[in-house]
Amino acid sequence: MMSNHDEQFEATHTEGSKMGIDLVGKTVKNKQIIFKGYIDGSPMENDMELKLGDGLKLEVPKGSNAIVVKNLYLSCDPYMRGRMLDFRGSYIPPFTPGSAIEGFGVSKVVDSDDPNFKRGDLVSGITNWEEYSLIHKTDQLRKIEQDDGIPLSYHVGLLGVYTPLAYSVCDPKKGDYVYVSAASGAVGQLVGQLAKLHGCYVVGSAGTSKKVELLKDKLGYFPEGIDIYFDNVGGAMLDAALANMRIHGRVAVCGMVSQTNRTDTQTFLNMFSVISKRVTIKGFLQSDFVHLYARFLEDITGWYKQRKIVYIEDMNNGLESAPAAFVGLFSGKNVGKQVICVASE
Amino acid sequence: MMSNHDEQFEATHTEGSKMGIDLVGKTVKNKQIIFKGYIDGSPMENDMELKLGDGLKLEVPKGSNAIVVKNLYLSCDPYMRGRMLDFRGSYIPPFTPGSAIEGFGVSKVVDSDDPNFKRGDLVSGITNWEEYSLIHKTDQLRKIEQDDGIPLSYHVGLLGVYTPLAYSVCDPKKGDYVYVSAASGAVGQLVGQLAKLHGCYVVGSAGTSKKVELLKDKLGYFPEGIDIYFDNVGGAMLDAALANMRIHGRVAVCGMVSQTNRTDTQTFLNMFSVISKRVTIKGFLQSDFVHLYARFLEDITGWYKQRKIVYIEDMNNGLESAPAAFVGLFSGKNVGKQVICVASE
Repeated sequence: MMSNHDEQFEATHTEGSKMGIDLVGKTVKNKQIIFKGYIDGSPMENDMELKLGDGLKLEVPKGSNAIVVKNLYLSCDPYMRGRMLDFRGSYIPPFTPGSAIEGFGVSKVVDSDDPNFKRGDLVSGITNWEEYSLIHKTDQLRKIEQDDGIPLSYHVGLLGVYTPLAYSVCDPKKGDYVYVSAASGAVGQLVGQLAKLHGCYVVGSAGTSKKVELLKDKLGYFPEGIDIYFDNVGGAMLDAALANMRIHGRVAVCGMVSQTNRTDTQTFLNMFSVISKRVTIKGFLQSDFVHLYARFLEDITGWYKQRKIVYIEDMNNGLESAPAAFVGLFSGKNVGKQVICVASE
Repeated sequence: MMSNHDEQFEATHTEGSKMGIDLVGKTVKNKQIIFKGYIDGSPMENDMELKLGDGLKLEVPKGSNAIVVKNLYLSCDPYMRGRMLDFRGSYIPPFTPGSAIEGFGVSKVVDSDDPNFKRGDLVSGITNWEEYSLIHKTDQLRKIEQDDGIPLSYHVGLLGVYTPLAYSVCDPKKGDYVYVSAASGAVGQLVGQLAKLHGCYVVGSAGTSKKVELLKDKLGYFPEGIDIYFDNVGGAMLDAALANMRIHGRVAVCGMVSQTNRTDTQTFLNMFSVISKRVTIKGFLQSDFVHLYARFLEDITGWYKQRKIVYIEDMNNGLESAPAAFVGLFSGKNVGKQVICVASE
């Protein structure tokens, strides 16, 4: 659908459609990032490998209801480590060794047998770490109405599936003291800004070596304690926060990036604070907030355009750069949301 | 206030009043349990000592607004260990070394300078571990309307200050799977019964050696996981429960009796379940439920008289028995609410 009052959008869209049409039926050497096998500890670059596919014909079989897409932007997310472990009891199944890594992305439709999508459409959703993907599960895809005010890559970041967490949890009130760990990350950066919009006093920590020290040396930051801790880190950071919670304080646990394995032990000195301060610790998954997504999208888009919030991306260029970028998440290498640009259109 | 339709009550009350009057002005060798000094680990009997006081005159000075009471029943509660530690950052200050231990009790008024209490009245509230106490902070006392259907000692147990926790937290729904640790204890025994009244399926654990094993070997108990875990224990038990929570399960943390010190480390293998199962862990203190006490009292008294709930006490006789009874709480020696009978009237 074109927008008459937006020439640039129209131009891009037309070109994109042409591109889609041009490629249909061609066979491409499809570059892929392959998941080699299950891991035990922190992911390393050589747990993945770049492979040139045998040749993918960019055409969907009739009756398949599938689509073929060209991947533009891929999202690097900490939760993906969980899929590298040989553990089937989680909310999402593990990766398949020998296959391309699965993840969120923004893609352009090259060919479609699904009546909901046509050639040239832009979509976000689960795709693979490769140049072109054949997607059968099209019901999880969302069509993107392109908007020049919003970079396309933001559809895996600012407007992606995780940021609604920042928007929905904790119920911040004016004057609350809010602490955010991994505050420059994909979700953390938005938590801090949204809390500020609510009139909270916000402190964030980022970087690896100074995190816990920053919080422990909290005088001047939170002399009166913390009302809300938005936890992206777990472990020692969560423990340090517990020691500093105010009465009836709330901890939203949205990530535990400090944990190498889901069964790593986490040792707490301050768990008793849960009783003495009547703290609530609550875990969240983005999938619980799907019903809020439409409202979230409208609010966040508006706030972004009004410059009430900013969003920082850490953009790597080229599919080849994906393994290093992903591994970097776990040593705090990224500043902002980690995205891979596979192709810009 | 006497009850015409209840002769036994009238007789007891009259005798009590006489007793009160008889003792006024007398000087008694007041037996006391003295707190010797701050401890580091588990409490031991010789952290306390029995002392014969120098002689207490059973009379309140005019204008003091105080009362003198004869203590009848004393409550042994795990929270009291926290008051034996030299830590002032908690919700309740530490005990004073060299002074009698402070705790909840049921007492009879011997003399009163407070217009709200008269000789012979029965009261519950904070008193001392001794035969007779001079109480200045009378505003924390609650006058007991004696009722033959309810044993007096129940005013530190079934109708005491902790059981409202069992009544108020967790919001059980029909069909929920509820697990209670320390399920034969003062609060735990009521949690299980109230959950059953709500139509929940309830499993409790009690005893020391078998607790975690019971839960780990959960097949047949909770093959589908736990909706509500009422935690009186903390540590390894909380960890084991986390591994078995259902999605959106709730953990009410009301005690951590497994922890010797408030700063003992607690190590968790399953903290990630908080995210993957979106579990809520919330701490509770009885003081947050004071506003519900009147309704609680009415409901619980009714249910007890209708035999919908039972209540088990572990009654020790004599003030001398108090240190051993208290220490026994931390090795799971008690079966039911631990009470000391100092005098029956």
